[in-house]
Amino acid sequence: MKAVLIGLGSVGRGVAEMIVKKNPRIIITGIADSKSGCICNEGIDLKSVLERKRREGVCGDRSVTADDVIRTAEYDVLIEVTPTNASTGEPALGYIRAALARKKHVVTSNKGPLAIAYHELTTLALKNNVSLRYEATVGGAIPIMHMIEDGLCGNEILAIYGVLNGTCNYILTRMAAEGLTYEQALMEAREMGYAEADPTYDVKGIDAAIKLVILVNTIWGDGLQLSDVDLTGIDLLTPDALRLAEEEDCTIRLIAEAIPRKKILRVSPRLIEKNHPLVVDGTLNALTLETDMAKEITLIGKGAGSIETASAIIGDILYIQQHHGKRT
Amino acid sequence: MKAVLIGLGSVGRGVAEMIVKKNPRIIITGIADSKSGCICNEGIDLKSVLERKRREGVCGDRSVTADDVIRTAEYDVLIEVTPTNASTGEPALGYIRAALARKKHVVTSNKGPLAIAYHELTTLALKNNVSLRYEATVGGAIPIMHMIEDGLCGNEILAIYGVLNGTCNYILTRMAAEGLTYEQALMEAREMGYAEADPTYDVKGIDAAIKLVILVNTIWGDGLQLSDVDLTGIDLLTPDALRLAEEEDCTIRLIAEAIPRKKILRVSPRLIEKNHPLVVDGTLNALTLETDMAKEITLIGKGAGSIETASAIIGDILYIQQHHGKRT
Repeated sequence: MKAVLIGLGSVGRGVAEMIVKKNPRIIITGIADSKSGCICNEGIDLKSVLERKRREGVCGDRSVTADDVIRTAEYDVLIEVTPTNASTGEPALGYIRAALARKKHVVTSNKGPLAIAYHELTTLALKNNVSLRYEATVGGAIPIMHMIEDGLCGNEILAIYGVLNGTCNYILTRMAAEGLTYEQALMEAREMGYAEADPTYDVKGIDAAIKLVILVNTIWGDGLQLSDVDLTGIDLLTPDALRLAEEEDCTIRLIAEAIPRKKILRVSPRLIEKNHPLVVDGTLNALTLETDMAKEITLIGKGAGSIETASAIIGDILYIQQHHGKRT
Repeated sequence: MKAVLIGLGSVGRGVAEMIVKKNPRIIITGIADSKSGCICNEGIDLKSVLERKRREGVCGDRSVTADDVIRTAEYDVLIEVTPTNASTGEPALGYIRAALARKKHVVTSNKGPLAIAYHELTTLALKNNVSLRYEATVGGAIPIMHMIEDGLCGNEILAIYGVLNGTCNYILTRMAAEGLTYEQALMEAREMGYAEADPTYDVKGIDAAIKLVILVNTIWGDGLQLSDVDLTGIDLLTPDALRLAEEEDCTIRLIAEAIPRKKILRVSPRLIEKNHPLVVDGTLNALTLETDMAKEITLIGKGAGSIETASAIIGDILYIQQHHGKRT
């Protein structure tokens, strides 16, 4: 199977390294980062591209753009792993549209296009009989989409509850464990590399809400948007609130939840019993699916990381190899 | 898709009820319990069979046996849900052999045949180009096999650690929470219907070890047997041991674990940190898969129950409908 790889940041490098290391049946015929690109329909030597990127900061020719790669290379699947832009989805949205229009499968880790144009993109993929897969957008390495699609096949999903942002979970874990203030825990998270210089996107719950929108659209196909989510962040939480929770054998977690029967779609700090499966520590992610037959199924794992995200991307590519176009 | 259902105990009734209620594309053409059976190649009215079973204790004609159904009915998949016999695997082993020999798919919740004749049965299925699926044998409703097969596709699984027996987990949870002795907690488990009159199979770790053998054979294909598992039960644990664990912010769980690189294959009570994802309460089951890319992924859910097990069975049947014979 031939693929082009757009984006060579942490996730893109992780994907390239894993393809080199594990040698799955994936041939890369095009690569682009924000400054350069290369096309070789016989297959690109990923090792030397990774080496060049490390040495020179580019992966190919400065005259070759991502658009060139997507529009002219020979490939079966676009691997789109550029940074998320939550307001416009671009440039990823354009890349994905272009590949789907060429009847190419798309595998992406990019939340922007999915949150903004879910209906348009899934409709286009369906019309052109190709797959659009995005396991890596929610819960990092945790195979949530596979679980919804196959593992719980036959079940009706009644509700979902998740810890979908590792930064917030780290801050809350440290506030509870050490009695830190929000500001102290945030500073620690920054020092550990778990929080950005501007933490708004994480601590206000926006990142978790975008992931919730992607999950809800996948499960119930409602055409929902970020603006439909009732949103409260963790930035106003006090150590007192966590102490009070502790007294009840509970703790506080930023929970993203969707319960259609109660018309609930929200991200907010919730009181939760300490022995509940969703109470995970540090930067872990967790998701509970409430279903009619299997009842509650919880998945826990790493929500971020270069190789962890590559796991989800490669899983999607192999799934397309094995199953696409073969459903009855 | 046409199916025959062998076994009308708690799991079989759950499967039949869910087929009636959810109306998936499954037509039942044969049914048998231990005393009776019926065949109707145009499709059996499940509602009236369930009603008759409730009223008269039989599902059909006393002259029709399970063997008759398996050998003569028209069907695509055998649903084999008779009780587990851990020493011989029979009569289920013979049923499964007969169906596979007729080139029929098999979906089973029965641990006996898988633990005893894994290699033989999977080889026969492969030779006859049919599927043998057994999601329900390990972890009840938790889609563990789907996770191994598709969700973590591309990953190398390095080790597994699981809480695979709800009875033991209930007893240990109650001993830790209330300071009960093993005998007191066992009595409580019996009253709640979580433990059998003869609890040996559960509390000695045999049930967990059989599930471990099925998992290990599925993942690493080693042809292992129950006798290869290093086995220690929970029946000698004292409240003191649990108190000491508590002092270290730990607890004790019966952990089934396989770590090939360390040549570990064992079921034993282990000290485990209380905030570890595997520490689940009551009759829940949990499994952690350690992998090369996704790192640790933990699954938590109900390990038993009529409808929960039916969820796994129906998921397997739908998986065969959608994917069988269509892999590249």
